Amino acid sequence: MARPQEFDTGDTLYKVLGIFWRKGYEATTMADVLRATGLSKSSLYGTFGGKRDLFLAAFDLYREDRERELNLVLGQGTAREAIERYFRLIIADAGRREFANGCMSINQAVELAPHDPDVRRRVQDDFNFMERAFVATIARGQDEGSVSTSKSPVDLAHLLMISFPGFQVMMRAEMGADWLERALGSLLSKLD
Amino acid sequence: MARPQEFDTGDTLYKVLGIFWRKGYEATTMADVLRATGLSKSSLYGTFGGKRDLFLAAFDLYREDRERELNLVLGQGTAREAIERYFRLIIADAGRREFANGCMSINQAVELAPHDPDVRRRVQDDFNFMERAFVATIARGQDEGSVSTSKSPVDLAHLLMISFPGFQVMMRAEMGADWLERALGSLLSKLD
Repeated sequence: MARPQEFDTGDTLYKVLGIFWRKGYEATTMADVLRATGLSKSSLYGTFGGKRDLFLAAFDLYREDRERELNLVLGQGTAREAIERYFRLIIADAGRREFANGCMSINQAVELAPHDPDVRRRVQDDFNFMERAFVATIARGQDEGSVSTSKSPVDLAHLLMISFPGFQVMMRAEMGADWLERALGSLLSKLD
Repeated sequence: MARPQEFDTGDTLYKVLGIFWRKGYEATTMADVLRATGLSKSSLYGTFGGKRDLFLAAFDLYREDRERELNLVLGQGTAREAIERYFRLIIADAGRREFANGCMSINQAVELAPHDPDVRRRVQDDFNFMERAFVATIARGQDEGSVSTSKSPVDLAHLLMISFPGFQVMMRAEMGADWLERALGSLLSKLD
């Protein structure tokens, strides 16, 4: 009887995530997944289930990492600085070849969410988490004085949320550093 | 000798556009294109060239239509009403199953623009056209009084440009009518 392969499930899931993030769900084949993980189909399926289960587990891992990063970035410095830093990270990431994958939740809002309720719920959870983090940060900024407008934090958070996919799109279209700088300046001025 | 097929090139190009718009470039096969147009490979290639030429011609057709529509929508009523109407059209289109394709320039900013300069130039042209149309409309609004802020029309146009992909993404994630209404209200309030 063959011994079952032993492997680190967390490490494996990151490899799986890398492929789904880069290629999306439909274009990823199980052959891609097996090649990236170096595992046999039976080991992988025995632990995670089929392609869709693997995708959902990888996407959950992505979302946990993203939420941790968001809290970290928004928690440092004044609220105004933190929000600016977060958007500058989006721009910087979108411009790096290895991150040209963009935000996986945006990608999945487009690819699977319209016809897959499990993916849609995860995308919505992610966006709602992000929005609550912006609301809390803007409210903190109004308390400490780094955000000078007295407009509703929820309205301002909606404006940040509706804008963030645009940075990814405009970076990929290479609209240029000046263009992006001006768009970011225009957006952030709404906090002043 | 076989007589060459006769066909309406404009009508054919709309059929080709329909497929590329829905499926993107990579996922579209020449078999899809031949099925949709009902033409033979030799007729199609003889007139338009290969798959990439066909794609570029279809994308040009899309951009011409879009520019005409944008001018039409932004030209009616006060500038403030016209801009609101344009964003409501984006939301309405994104919610209709047959238009779930979204904006082809956004899709191509993501799919081909990062590694295809001919597509990138077309996407940039389209975005720049849209931005100039917003700048002109905002300036008209400031003249007639429907846009009450005296902020720079170019800065405000950048804000509209950076926001418009978000409406498509948030619609596809089904963030809900209330959410979108609030985001649109927050964006449009920057014109007041």
